[in-house]
Amino acid sequence: MNNKFSEELFLTNETGRMLYHRYAEPLPIIDYHCHLQPAEIVENREFEDLGEMWLRGDHYKWRCMRTFGIDEKYITGDASYYEKYMAFAKILPQLAGNPIYIWCALELKRYFDIDEPLTAKNAQAIYDRTKALIREKHMTRRWCMEHSNVRLVSTTEDPIDDLHDHIALQKEAMSTRVITAFRPDKAMFCALPTFAEYLQKLSAAAQMPVDSFASMLSALESRLQYFQKVTGTTVSDDGIPFFTWADYTMPEIEGIFAKARSGGKLTAKEIDQYQSAFLFEMGRMYNRNGYVMQLHIGTYLDANRSKVKAIGQSTGFDCIDDQASVTSVGELLNRLTEIGELPKTLLYPLDGTKIEAWAVLAAGFCDSGVRAKVQLAAPWWFNDQVYGIQRQFEACANLYPVSLSVGMLTDSRSFISYPRHELYRRMLCNYLGALVERGEYFSGEEELKETIENVCFNNVNEFFGFGVER
Amino acid sequence: MNNKFSEELFLTNETGRMLYHRYAEPLPIIDYHCHLQPAEIVENREFEDLGEMWLRGDHYKWRCMRTFGIDEKYITGDASYYEKYMAFAKILPQLAGNPIYIWCALELKRYFDIDEPLTAKNAQAIYDRTKALIREKHMTRRWCMEHSNVRLVSTTEDPIDDLHDHIALQKEAMSTRVITAFRPDKAMFCALPTFAEYLQKLSAAAQMPVDSFASMLSALESRLQYFQKVTGTTVSDDGIPFFTWADYTMPEIEGIFAKARSGGKLTAKEIDQYQSAFLFEMGRMYNRNGYVMQLHIGTYLDANRSKVKAIGQSTGFDCIDDQASVTSVGELLNRLTEIGELPKTLLYPLDGTKIEAWAVLAAGFCDSGVRAKVQLAAPWWFNDQVYGIQRQFEACANLYPVSLSVGMLTDSRSFISYPRHELYRRMLCNYLGALVERGEYFSGEEELKETIENVCFNNVNEFFGFGVER
Amino acid sequence: MNNKFSEELFLTNETGRMLYHRYAEPLPIIDYHCHLQPAEIVENREFEDLGEMWLRGDHYKWRCMRTFGIDEKYITGDASYYEKYMAFAKILPQLAGNPIYIWCALELKRYFDIDEPLTAKNAQAIYDRTKALIREKHMTRRWCMEHSNVRLVSTTEDPIDDLHDHIALQKEAMSTRVITAFRPDKAMFCALPTFAEYLQKLSAAAQMPVDSFASMLSALESRLQYFQKVTGTTVSDDGIPFFTWADYTMPEIEGIFAKARSGGKLTAKEIDQYQSAFLFEMGRMYNRNGYVMQLHIGTYLDANRSKVKAIGQSTGFDCIDDQASVTSVGELLNRLTEIGELPKTLLYPLDGTKIEAWAVLAAGFCDSGVRAKVQLAAPWWFNDQVYGIQRQFEACANLYPVSLSVGMLTDSRSFISYPRHELYRRMLCNYLGALVERGEYFSGEEELKETIENVCFNNVNEFFGFGVER
Repeated sequence: MNNKFSEELFLTNETGRMLYHRYAEPLPIIDYHCHLQPAEIVENREFEDLGEMWLRGDHYKWRCMRTFGIDEKYITGDASYYEKYMAFAKILPQLAGNPIYIWCALELKRYFDIDEPLTAKNAQAIYDRTKALIREKHMTRRWCMEHSNVRLVSTTEDPIDDLHDHIALQKEAMSTRVITAFRPDKAMFCALPTFAEYLQKLSAAAQMPVDSFASMLSALESRLQYFQKVTGTTVSDDGIPFFTWADYTMPEIEGIFAKARSGGKLTAKEIDQYQSAFLFEMGRMYNRNGYVMQLHIGTYLDANRSKVKAIGQSTGFDCIDDQASVTSVGELLNRLTEIGELPKTLLYPLDGTKIEAWAVLAAGFCDSGVRAKVQLAAPWWFNDQVYGIQRQFEACANLYPVSLSVGMLTDSRSFISYPRHELYRRMLCNYLGALVERGEYFSGEEELKETIENVCFNNVNEFFGFGVER
Repeated sequence: MNNKFSEELFLTNETGRMLYHRYAEPLPIIDYHCHLQPAEIVENREFEDLGEMWLRGDHYKWRCMRTFGIDEKYITGDASYYEKYMAFAKILPQLAGNPIYIWCALELKRYFDIDEPLTAKNAQAIYDRTKALIREKHMTRRWCMEHSNVRLVSTTEDPIDDLHDHIALQKEAMSTRVITAFRPDKAMFCALPTFAEYLQKLSAAAQMPVDSFASMLSALESRLQYFQKVTGTTVSDDGIPFFTWADYTMPEIEGIFAKARSGGKLTAKEIDQYQSAFLFEMGRMYNRNGYVMQLHIGTYLDANRSKVKAIGQSTGFDCIDDQASVTSVGELLNRLTEIGELPKTLLYPLDGTKIEAWAVLAAGFCDSGVRAKVQLAAPWWFNDQVYGIQRQFEACANLYPVSLSVGMLTDSRSFISYPRHELYRRMLCNYLGALVERGEYFSGEEELKETIENVCFNNVNEFFGFGVER
Repeated sequence: MNNKFSEELFLTNETGRMLYHRYAEPLPIIDYHCHLQPAEIVENREFEDLGEMWLRGDHYKWRCMRTFGIDEKYITGDASYYEKYMAFAKILPQLAGNPIYIWCALELKRYFDIDEPLTAKNAQAIYDRTKALIREKHMTRRWCMEHSNVRLVSTTEDPIDDLHDHIALQKEAMSTRVITAFRPDKAMFCALPTFAEYLQKLSAAAQMPVDSFASMLSALESRLQYFQKVTGTTVSDDGIPFFTWADYTMPEIEGIFAKARSGGKLTAKEIDQYQSAFLFEMGRMYNRNGYVMQLHIGTYLDANRSKVKAIGQSTGFDCIDDQASVTSVGELLNRLTEIGELPKTLLYPLDGTKIEAWAVLAAGFCDSGVRAKVQLAAPWWFNDQVYGIQRQFEACANLYPVSLSVGMLTDSRSFISYPRHELYRRMLCNYLGALVERGEYFSGEEELKETIENVCFNNVNEFFGFGVER
């Protein structure tokens, strides 16, 4: 039985192997959505150890460790990174089929040239060896990005962020360009008790009063233009945990805004109306400012509330809401189309089982003059793995040309998660190779080269207008 | 890398190859649901060119072209068929994995014996060659059907249609019998502003007053019997875009009918009640007249409304409603069963991800004396492709015997879409062959022959009582 | 073409074959959820014939026979088991891809050493041969369990059951230990007309008054402790056909209880509130008594009501409700977590297409100190077949480590359904083997051995605390 990392990973057909090694492997990376902290890139410290690299901020691993019943101390608690690493190494061999297994294998191989499997037995040896390499090669945050040939990353920040880290980064000579997405979620969650407080901060950031829905939009637009001025970004980042389209009038929205701002309890319908108006107006704003609208749809946020209270948000207690509605997002796209103000849009449905209905929706709003104006983004979050990626290829190629896709992203808090692009590219090439070998595609190598280069690099570069050179 | 059309397309195992070539390939075709225009069959003109063959009325290709951002002029606009063909040929090599790719390849092979892939480079040459062949062989509408060994097609018409084209066709000596389905959708959409106007037309067609729900049903039944008299049909065609079963009384329904007819605004509940009553009564009518009830479930009609206004209905702006409810259709079947008047029924759920719940529902209403009384029809519309067909085989064979299936249909507006039957048959044989090679089936060749002949021809012939000879 | 049962069934890769034969095949069976009748085990009669073995109580086969239009007489009617067997044998060769086909093949092989396929032609011969073997080997109920190396089965009983059969079984020297699950569904279905009558029976069984929600809970707990005393069980069995979480106060619940008990008509909201309170309180009760909570979610019960009336409940007329809500069950888990009283929990979603959202939910409620505290159970009912099992491995290994699974169960009314464990084990090994051969797993044979032994035996044994020796 094979006991070493294989360079033919996932490549189960000859054509796919050829395509991957010849065309996909050498391409640089554009990571158009991630959760890196810009301050870390500015500071650019060397990593302490593999424990920090793997277990600082990675809620995928945290979730997984909890399924094994591991004490929270070794997950998000006060154990050292060394101790956390040792606890994690012990369960890794029991993760057959889980993306964490293959991500870790790829990361050990690509950053440390380790071919052997990590087990409880060699955990100490691998810890020591990786720690020595980190020191020897000065593996800093930027080192990781450069080592992986990353040409652009987009972090994501709140409109009130002053972007001082991003300003600092613009002045640095780096081979990886860093921009940020504009993420106005807190202005949409009007029912949260922190809404009024947030509006004050937004007012301060924009240096204008925010005492109405209209003035809030002005403040947001001012910040959106500031984000663009500082980093040149064209990337938005909107979350829609649950959303039912509800018709509204502007006076109604102003009434709801005033009520929310003064701490009044909103009805479900009022929240729906507010969110409908908010997303509609943000769509218009993105369109007139040349932003791409990114909609992250269907998160079941904070499902396990007492754990969130104890450990924090985004630490592994979010789940999937299976009720997020295609027709409500469809109505948003329809309204923006009716007034001719639909921006380029990327859809990220979290419930991957419904990917087909979303692909069909996206195709129904494409339009002359723009390549793939509305499309699915990369398989998101829980779908960012072999099964989810393969499903998106197979299910959606049938409904929306896969060759138009803007390809992969990491959505990650980690500086060594770039092999996820490699995994995606391997699967893409294997998928195309299988089509060839079944006789389902026979247009030739040159045409497949074009598809691969488009999906892995060109499409995303052109869609966002990044202008990155290859 | 293979650069030619392969006769072993989709056939990835030896048993599947043998089964396809020996048993499935020679069978004639019954296309029990399509959208051909009978007037075109009557006129029987030669096609102008491959552009007309491919791009006249095919909203699958239109949708796809829009995803590439092609100008609407070359899609549904006033460009010539030649220009449209050239615009389409350019994107075809970028459609790896899309059914349009393999449909086009099959159509080039089967109607024009072209083995090579169509690309921008040879688009002109292939245009010229196909145009010459159309002239040389006099490729008319009927030629296409005969060439594909099609023994019966069912178009679909509104109850008010006088069927003059169908009457004309009954008199012709054709090797393809043409019948029509009875499609009373416009009588179900009571909330449309055109409802009252439609009722007047129905009254005129049936030559009886239509001033109540009861008299509307009488008029519909008169037309249904007329459809049967003219073409011998047993095929209905009902659409259920969205539907929640709601209990009702007949006086309530008459009240809703009167309100709808006089242009009153109906509540959501009234629409549900009306649709419940309508489908229930149509089911009884189908049953007593020996029709098969076909339910097309879960279309998100006209999602992109301004485009529909500009370009028209059924031109590529319909999507999938992921909320169509199994239990509501289940209640319809239950009520009809309770009074012993459930007709044979075919279910076409558009949201293919829920195919399993629908297969289970169908099995729950089967009954003594009728083979597969309620069953899934062929994978419909967005599901009519490799992934959708394979899913229906794999997911549903487990829940409902695949050997009972009435098999494939085209649902198409095109006269050269019959290779979709070939594609389905290849997949069926490959699916069965894979079962054999994994040891999951070992009853022998004779039994598989029976399954294949049943699924590809006999079942549909017997289910509808077409009486077509093989 | 292969015409014999194959010992390499499902094993399509070398690694999988090795893993299955070396590690999975020899393991004994723990069947932690089934519907065997304890009285039958006590009586321990020899089977009459293969007809009784196959067609007594098996609604899977009944459903399937109905799809072929077979007369109900030969399904649940008064035909003899011989006649039913002959009717069933005739359709078996037409069940390619259906789990019934491969279950029957496995049962013929494992209990009667029959390699050849059953067809109409050899049906009589196989009937005679199996009948002779039943006599010769004295194939009783217990013989079947012992022959399959079954170490523990859990039946399921209502709280009012006096467990006299289970008491009798505790005294027998059997190599299969028999326990029972505690199934309080009838106390949850407060809207049924039989509710008040049921409460009286519960009161009698518990020998305490049941005149309030609180006293009903006390009675249930008394019975739950009795179940544990008699059989040592830690297994619950709760059904949630449809369920929307609704907040409530205890006075509200007592009001609803009183109304339900006196036959008043409950509103939908009242039913939701009652069920929320009921499941919440049962969860607490399971937790404090060391039970595992098993939630069976999303049955569309009695979809075909007139057939249920004529033939009975659980005879093949239940379907899948596609609307069962992840967030409502999530809220139940959340509330129990908030008070620190969440028991170990197994989720059985019937709508297998949503398995991913459920796997993610389960992971979100795991906790320190308990291995896989909340997890998916085996693919349930309509999902208990090749496609459903494979989907659960592929889709969920990505979201929840497959190595933690408590593995397979039969959920069956049949004494010869244990080869379903074999089928599952073959698929598990084939799945793991495929990962190895694609390079996705390379930790070695020893680690895979651990995973296989855990999933097939150790996990379930430890999770429920059965203490069965291997």
